[in-house]
Amino acid sequence: MKVNGKPFRTIWLGPDGETVEIIDQTKLPFEFVVVGMTSLGDAVRAIANMLVRGAPLIGATAAYGVALAMKDDASDAGLDKAYKVLFESRPTAVNLRWALDDLKALLEPLAAGDRQAAAYKRAADICDEDVEMCSSLGEHGRGIIEDIWTEKNKSEGKPDRVNVLTHCNAGWLATVDWGTAMAPVYKAFDAGIPVHVWVDETRPRNQGASLTCWELGQHGVPHTLIVDNVGGHLMQHGMVDLCITGTDRTTAAGDVCNKIGTYLKALAAYDNGVPFYVGLPGPTIDWTIDDGVKDVPIEQRDGGEVTRLTGVTDAGKIETITIAPPASDAANYAFDVTPARLVTGLITERGVAEASKPGLAALYPENAGD
Amino acid sequence: MKVNGKPFRTIWLGPDGETVEIIDQTKLPFEFVVVGMTSLGDAVRAIANMLVRGAPLIGATAAYGVALAMKDDASDAGLDKAYKVLFESRPTAVNLRWALDDLKALLEPLAAGDRQAAAYKRAADICDEDVEMCSSLGEHGRGIIEDIWTEKNKSEGKPDRVNVLTHCNAGWLATVDWGTAMAPVYKAFDAGIPVHVWVDETRPRNQGASLTCWELGQHGVPHTLIVDNVGGHLMQHGMVDLCITGTDRTTAAGDVCNKIGTYLKALAAYDNGVPFYVGLPGPTIDWTIDDGVKDVPIEQRDGGEVTRLTGVTDAGKIETITIAPPASDAANYAFDVTPARLVTGLITERGVAEASKPGLAALYPENAGD
Repeated sequence: MKVNGKPFRTIWLGPDGETVEIIDQTKLPFEFVVVGMTSLGDAVRAIANMLVRGAPLIGATAAYGVALAMKDDASDAGLDKAYKVLFESRPTAVNLRWALDDLKALLEPLAAGDRQAAAYKRAADICDEDVEMCSSLGEHGRGIIEDIWTEKNKSEGKPDRVNVLTHCNAGWLATVDWGTAMAPVYKAFDAGIPVHVWVDETRPRNQGASLTCWELGQHGVPHTLIVDNVGGHLMQHGMVDLCITGTDRTTAAGDVCNKIGTYLKALAAYDNGVPFYVGLPGPTIDWTIDDGVKDVPIEQRDGGEVTRLTGVTDAGKIETITIAPPASDAANYAFDVTPARLVTGLITERGVAEASKPGLAALYPENAGD
Repeated sequence: MKVNGKPFRTIWLGPDGETVEIIDQTKLPFEFVVVGMTSLGDAVRAIANMLVRGAPLIGATAAYGVALAMKDDASDAGLDKAYKVLFESRPTAVNLRWALDDLKALLEPLAAGDRQAAAYKRAADICDEDVEMCSSLGEHGRGIIEDIWTEKNKSEGKPDRVNVLTHCNAGWLATVDWGTAMAPVYKAFDAGIPVHVWVDETRPRNQGASLTCWELGQHGVPHTLIVDNVGGHLMQHGMVDLCITGTDRTTAAGDVCNKIGTYLKALAAYDNGVPFYVGLPGPTIDWTIDDGVKDVPIEQRDGGEVTRLTGVTDAGKIETITIAPPASDAANYAFDVTPARLVTGLITERGVAEASKPGLAALYPENAGD
C-alpha cells in the first residue's frame, strides 16, 4: 500500500539481488527506516525483536532467512541450523513453521550448490503468493462491508459511514501487502465505500496506535484511535458495524488465537449483536489442533513491555519512560484465544467460512483430513 | 492506609485549621507530594485536574471546597457560586452532587456568620463517615474473600492464594481511607488471608498502574500489573477467583457506571463463571435512574490523554511522550456501564446486595421510594 504516496511492500529483495530489505516496524510511527538483512542472524533478530511482525510477514521473513543462510552455508548442517534458530525466534506463529517446512522440503533433496538460488526463488514466490492471498481475502471481505453499507442505506436513510473496529495490526504491515483484517477495509475504501476504522491502541506494544493508525493514515483511510477499554462502550451504543481482527493461529475448529485482548472484543460484539470477523490466509490455520483455549501455548513476554513505553517528546526526541512503581511486578501474556462460538465468520482467500470444523473443511478439503 | 510505614488519609485539615491538605495524585507513583488548598478555586482545580479522583474523595473535596468558599464569601451568592462551580468541575460523579446538596441544605438556613464553621465541621464529618462506610464495606467484602479461600482449601488441598482482579483505582486513594473495591482486599490482607491482586493498568490515565499498584505496594499487598487486555485470558485459565471494581455511579436497578473497560471484564467474568463484585458506599447509588446504558451520560475527555503518556525516564526525569502518529484522531470515552445482569453482587457498607432494584431496595429502604 502507499507510504508518502508511493507503493510499498513490507519485504523485498534489494538491488544487489542478495540483501533482503524490510521496514523496521519498531521505529514506526516516528521514523520510516528501511533495514537491509544480509545474514541468517539478521533475519532471526528481525523476527525476535519484532522489526517484522504479523504471522504472514514472519513466514516470509523466515523464508528469506533460509535463503540468507544458504548464501553463507548451504550444507545439510547449515540448513538444519537455519531451520532450528528461525523456528525458535518466535513461539506462536504457525506461518513460521509452515514457511520453514516448505523451504526444508524443497532444499533437502537438492545439491548444496543449488540451494541458494532455489531458496531465494521460493522466498520471492512465497511473498507473491501472500500478496495474491491477501488481495483475494480482501475482495471477499469487501463484500461483507459492501453488504453492511447497502443495509445501512436501506435502514438509516443517509448513514455517514461503515464503522469497523480492529485490534492490533493486521494491516499490510503485518503481511507482505494488503494485510488480513485490513485488506477488506483497503478494498472497500479503494472502491469508494465510506469506511471508518476504530483502532484499538493494543497494549502493551501499541501496534494499533503506532502501526495501524500510521498505515491507514498513509493510505488516506479515516480512522480514530481508542484505548483497548473503549470498544465495549462503542458497541453498546451502536457505533460499531463490524469487528475485523487478524489471527496468529486459528485451529481446525475455528478457535482464534490473536493478540491479547481480542477475546474481550469478541465477547462485547457477541453481547451486542455486532458481527465479529477474522481475516486469515489459509496457512494461518493449524490443522493439528481443535481446542484453542486448551492447546495453543501462550507466549509470555518481558514485563518491561508493560511498565515501559517509547514515544517522542515535545522536543522531538525518542524517549522511553517507566509508568509504574518500580517495586510492582508486571505479567505480560501476549495472546489470547477467542472461542469459535464468538466468531461470526473467517474471511479467507477462498471465501468466508463459518468458524467451525465443517466450515473450514469445506473451504480447505485438502487439509481437513477426516 | 500506610505510606512509608505511616498511616495516612487522602484529605485532612492542616495545622492552621483552615487549609485543607490532599495528596497530589497526579504525581504518583513517582513523587509523594502533599498540596494545601486555601480557596474554592484550589478545590475546583483539584477535582477538575484530578489531583483528587474517585467518587467518594471527590465528594469529600467538594464539601471542603464549600468550606473554603465560606471562609472567603459566606453570602448567599457565595454559596450559590461555590455550588455551581464545584458541580461543574466533573460531570459524572454522583457523590459530588450528593455532598454539595448536603452542604447547601445545611448552610442555606444559617446566618452568613455561622456558615464557615458549620461547613468545616460538616466536611470533617463527611470524611469520618466515609471512612466508617468504607471500613464497614471492607468487612462485608472480606467475608466473600474468606469464603472463597475456605472453598479453595477444601477443593484444591493447598492453594497458594486468592486472586482478585481489579480495574482502575478504587483503593483508599479514591476515598478518604480503606477504599471501595480494595477495602475487602485490605481487610482480608490484614486478617492474614493470602490475597494477590491482578491490577489492570487502566488506560488512558493508568490509574491502576500508577495508583493501585502504588498503594497496594505501600501497604505490602502482593500484586501484579497487567495491561487491560489480559483479564479475559486469565479468567479463561482459572487464574482469577473474583473481580472487584469500584463505581462512579450505580443505578437503582444495579447497572454499574465505572471506568471505561469495566464492562469488558464483567463480560469475561460472566463467560467464565468468575464472580464479579462491585464495592460501593450508599451515596454512589443514583436512585433517580434505572437503565444505566441508556441514561448515564458518559464523559468524553481530551484525546491527548490517549496519545500522550507521562512517566519517568531512565535518567529520573518526569517526561511526557506522544505514542501515536500526530495526524491520527483519538477519541476518549471515560466511563462505561456494566448491566446489572453481569454483576454478581454489590458490596455496600450495609451488606452485599444483589445487583437489582429489589436487592438495593432491601438494603436502602429509605431511598428506594416505591
